[in-house]
Amino acid sequence: MSDRSGVSVATVKYYLREGLLAPGTPVTARQSEYGEDHLRRLRLIRALLTVGGMTVQQARDVLAVADDPAFGRHERLGIAQYMLGPRITPPQDADPARPLWDEVFTELRGLLSELGWQVCDEAPALAALTRAVVTLRSLGYHGGVDHIRRYALAMRPIAAEEYAVIEDHPVLEEAIEATVAYTMLYEPILLALRRLAHEDVSARLHPPTGRPISSS
Amino acid sequence: MSDRSGVSVATVKYYLREGLLAPGTPVTARQSEYGEDHLRRLRLIRALLTVGGMTVQQARDVLAVADDPAFGRHERLGIAQYMLGPRITPPQDADPARPLWDEVFTELRGLLSELGWQVCDEAPALAALTRAVVTLRSLGYHGGVDHIRRYALAMRPIAAEEYAVIEDHPVLEEAIEATVAYTMLYEPILLALRRLAHEDVSARLHPPTGRPISSS
Repeated sequence: MSDRSGVSVATVKYYLREGLLAPGTPVTARQSEYGEDHLRRLRLIRALLTVGGMTVQQARDVLAVADDPAFGRHERLGIAQYMLGPRITPPQDADPARPLWDEVFTELRGLLSELGWQVCDEAPALAALTRAVVTLRSLGYHGGVDHIRRYALAMRPIAAEEYAVIEDHPVLEEAIEATVAYTMLYEPILLALRRLAHEDVSARLHPPTGRPISSS
Repeated sequence: MSDRSGVSVATVKYYLREGLLAPGTPVTARQSEYGEDHLRRLRLIRALLTVGGMTVQQARDVLAVADDPAFGRHERLGIAQYMLGPRITPPQDADPARPLWDEVFTELRGLLSELGWQVCDEAPALAALTRAVVTLRSLGYHGGVDHIRRYALAMRPIAAEEYAVIEDHPVLEEAIEATVAYTMLYEPILLALRRLAHEDVSARLHPPTGRPISSS
């Protein structure tokens, strides 16, 4: 299994010990047989821990929901996304930063309702969004809801197109792996392309002098 | 100046000592006068160091280009963006990872030319993009140029709209500050909105069971 997955024997043993991976069917006292299901599960565990940066406990939570027939596909993929960092916790009730947090959260919640987005109040990405807008405003930058709305509308078709790729995976384990992998690995791609696009827009508006701007 | 900028006296003294901020006009032996230019420069330095996460040396480089009449607006804003992290260095020539890096870099460079984007080969965001695509492919995910092209086309109008906000700042210091602030502070906003949009798309395709998916 190690050969076929590219995961080292020591790592496979670690996953077995942590109860993330079920034991194979014993063949001899020292050998077990593993099937395709095992291989898929192994790849998923590796993606959760390495690409997703999850703790063993978080990976266990993801797998528990994935294996629980009471949950549907929405929750099974959703829990994987929810376990990805960054994990933002709101300020405590008594914290002087709390009123601004609540104000921004309510505004953003209202924006999402207005857009008709079906999103849980507990979505970690909603806390991350709130924190980012609070930071903007605390530093004296605009960060108005009108601005956030424009970004939301621009991101929606990108997300829908991405999600279609995940829908192409009929096998649940593969769909969860794709959710984690694409969510995490395309983030730096999106951000890099945004900066490259800024450079291009700037070059069109203000023709470069030709003197190199090197970064020391 | 500390009162008007919200920057502590100790921090202002530190910037003066590091040569980031020019001394004011002496009034008495212990007091100096500072004008609007100083205040703007102070706000910019704070943005470079705190929001932009730059080192003092990087901030100095940004200010040197900003103050050098040989550079135009493109370079003056560009150097600020180039100094923002993450800083990705390509693998060394002898590194076994180098051929894949070169292959991906060439493909991406070709894509940008095809799109007509005016971007330097040395753009840190191009290295960041290369690294991200190398990671995708190394892990066995698609990461084809066709895929990256779709993202590039989707990000282009967002970037153009953002850049218009920066163009609204006629004063150079303020435009540089806006470049740093908006580049950095909107990144988590974009990423959070993408994840919220995924949740919404998923909820429409696979109606939630209503059982909460809490993250422990």
